[in-house]
This record gives sequence, C-alpha cells and structure tokens, in this order.
Amino acid sequence: MISKSQAKFVKSLKLKKYRKKALSFLIEGAKNVLELLDSDFEVQQLFVTEKFLEKYGDRLHEKTAYLVCKENELAALGTFKTNEYALAVAKMRPKSCDFHEDDLIIVLDGVSDPGNLGAIIRIADWYGISNIVASTDSADFYNPKVINATMGSFTRVCVRHMDLEQFFLEDQDRRVYGAVLDGKDINEADLNLPAILLMGSESTGVSESLQRHIHEKITIPRRGGAESLNVAISTAIVCDHFFRN
Amino acid sequence: MISKSQAKFVKSLKLKKYRKKALSFLIEGAKNVLELLDSDFEVQQLFVTEKFLEKYGDRLHEKTAYLVCKENELAALGTFKTNEYALAVAKMRPKSCDFHEDDLIIVLDGVSDPGNLGAIIRIADWYGISNIVASTDSADFYNPKVINATMGSFTRVCVRHMDLEQFFLEDQDRRVYGAVLDGKDINEADLNLPAILLMGSESTGVSESLQRHIHEKITIPRRGGAESLNVAISTAIVCDHFFRN
Repeated sequence: MISKSQAKFVKSLKLKKYRKKALSFLIEGAKNVLELLDSDFEVQQLFVTEKFLEKYGDRLHEKTAYLVCKENELAALGTFKTNEYALAVAKMRPKSCDFHEDDLIIVLDGVSDPGNLGAIIRIADWYGISNIVASTDSADFYNPKVINATMGSFTRVCVRHMDLEQFFLEDQDRRVYGAVLDGKDINEADLNLPAILLMGSESTGVSESLQRHIHEKITIPRRGGAESLNVAISTAIVCDHFFRN
Repeated sequence: MISKSQAKFVKSLKLKKYRKKALSFLIEGAKNVLELLDSDFEVQQLFVTEKFLEKYGDRLHEKTAYLVCKENELAALGTFKTNEYALAVAKMRPKSCDFHEDDLIIVLDGVSDPGNLGAIIRIADWYGISNIVASTDSADFYNPKVINATMGSFTRVCVRHMDLEQFFLEDQDRRVYGAVLDGKDINEADLNLPAILLMGSESTGVSESLQRHIHEKITIPRRGGAESLNVAISTAIVCDHFFRN
C-alpha cells in the first residue's frame, strides 16, 4: 500500500520545479524500469505489480527494495493511462557527462517536444552516440515523457542542457554540420568524423544566430509533397548517413 | 455558434464505428486543414477561428462555407488539448487507390500505434511514395491521431487496409524486402526498385506467417545499446537507403 505522502512526492515529479528540488525523476513501464535497474542510476523507490514480479522477478537484484502495487495505483502515480508493470523514482545524474570521446555529438536547437527529444535519445543510443547537447529551451531530459520515449536509452545517453552560443565557443575543433532545408544534398556531402550535427526545431529550423557556426549545411533531398520531416526522423536519417559504410 | 447536433456529429467521428457509418473523418490544426482545402477531398464542414481567418483567410476558396468559432469550441469538438486555428470534417475517399505506379510500396504489418502510422505516411510523402498497404490490425487511416500526425500528407498518400496474405497473393512481381533484426546489413544489400518494403510491428516484428514472402531480409546495423528502433524511424532510414544516389 502506497502512503499518501509517498504518492504526493511521486506525483510531484511530473513537474520540473519539484524534480529540480528533489533531484529525482520518474521512470515508467517495464522496459524503462528494467533498463534503470541495470544501470548505475540510484533507484530511490520502486513500485511493481504482481505481473511484473512473475515476468521479470529474476531481473531484480537481491537488495532491491520494492513495493507491490495494483495497476491502477501505478497509473495514478505516473503519466501513463495504464501501467501494467512498474514505476520507479531515481536520483538524477550527479554531474554532466564528458562528451569529448564521441565521434558525433548531436546538438539540438529548440527541440521542445518531449516525444521528439526522447526519440532522438533512442536514435543516438542505436548509433552509439552517448552525448547530446540541447538548448535551454529544449524539452527537459528528466521530463517523464522524454524518459518514457527513450525506451531505456536514457541510461546510456547523456543530455546536457546549455546555452548553445556558449557551447560553440567552448568546442571549436569539430566540423559542424547543420541540417537545413536549403543545404547540400546529404548524398553528395563529405561527412567526416569527428563532427557536430546541429538540428533545429521543426517549426523554425536552426536559429539565425547559430547558423554562423555551421561549416556545412546539409539537406535530406525531398522527392514528394511533404513540406518537412519530423526532427527525430531527420536526425535518424542524418546519423545513418554518418555511419554508413 | 455550433449547434448541439452538429457538435455531437463531429465528436462522434473520433470513433471508428461512427466514421464508418458517416463515411466522414476529422481533420484538425492549421497545417492539416490547409492541406485538406488544397486537396481533392470533399470538405463537409469547416470550423475556423478569427485568428485562422486573419492568417490564412486568403487560402480559402470563394465558395468554401465555414463557421467562425472560439478556440475552446474547437478543442471541445476534436482531439487536441488546444486548437487555435481550425477543424474540418471531410468525406472519406470513395475507393482504394491504384498503387501499381509507385517504385516502392510500403507494407505495414501490425503497426497499431496511430502516431507511428501517421509518421510513416508523412515519411512516405517526403520520399514520393503514394501508397501504403496496412494489415487490418494496423491503426485506422482515418483515426484523427493518424490524420493529425501526417501533417497534411494524408492528402497525398493512400493507405489500403487489407489482409496481407491476400496482398502478397495478388502482387508477386515485386522484390520484397523485409526489415528484421537479423537480416543483411542494409549498407551491403542490393536495393532494387520497383520493390515492396515490409515493416513489422515494433514489439513483434514481421509476423512469422508473412516471413516467407520476403526475398531479402535487411537490417539497419546497430552500433550502440538501444534494443530496437521505432518503426517509423526504421521506415524512414530504409526508404532513404532506397532513394540514395
């Protein structure tokens, strides 16, 4: 049985200001919670259903403390309409990650939709990219919708939120590729690593003020009638071009 | 002012059984409604805000009838939390499309998430693919969440829902590429058009029974830790490989 104060605390983590105060965040669903348990994140609270224990009980470490709940209790705590398996609260990472080892760094300018940021984190993880830099007006990494959309990849990809002008001042050695609508056909561009890939927001693209940091503007050629591609879709296609044989 | 019976009818279109009965569907938001107005779909009802008229009034045809509404009225009619611009009801396409002209046909097996189907329609439109075949357990093309996620591409891409065994019996001339987790590295595959691209559901992949129709199994190579890619993301990457120079 979940106590009232426990429930109040967990629910509060849906909002950034309470996450910031507690330095904790929410993780929901079997896949995300299992990846959390296998990661080095510090798990503070774990709520699971009987169904979770039956199916994944052997994946729990001996020392892991948990509370058995009903599905409707889990749904009431979190953001999912229904949650058959699990919900956890974990401590945020103590510090920002060191990203100078990656071949490719993804830089996101104004990607405010949490689903898109989550999808991009999952794509980065697929391609072995462990670091993303996001503008301060991008979605918050610890937003439950971001975490949930990563399908566990939040444990392997580090997102640093910062002023992008500041980022480009600090990191000037890498070639910067910017995805825009009027750049060079990506099939004809020389994509050399290490590099920075700068992706803009879906509605307004890369900010005017950041365009001067781009060394090569690239474009995914359009053959049909759609006006644009979703930013997560574009990021995936460009990443694939970078790592193509 | 929207009448009660009008509102009741519009709201009923959120459900498939009422769409099927009325042969009508819902379209929401500025981008989708503007694309609808430029298409050959028959618009039955159009609700717009003052803001829409100011911004896009010149895009309305002279004969287009519309009703001016408040934003909260639009939101109450449709599926959006907020809707600043427009909502329309249109007649479904009278018949299934003829898809023997396309170089590439996308076939979807069990893509039940409406957001994913909508995203795939938008991707198809970007690559000039005008036809998709979806299994009967895939999301309904006319589901408002599908239509909205297409960002207007529903006007240019035709989705035919049918039994996929039946489809493969009818169409045997094209080479069938199936995206799976243990296929040939897509970078090394010969991707020849015309072709069929078979994509499975995210959780279970291509159905066992449909695997025998695949001539070449292809895989997007993984470099990192993510277990899988979202089906819309994978579809985009594979399409991009097909149309690469």
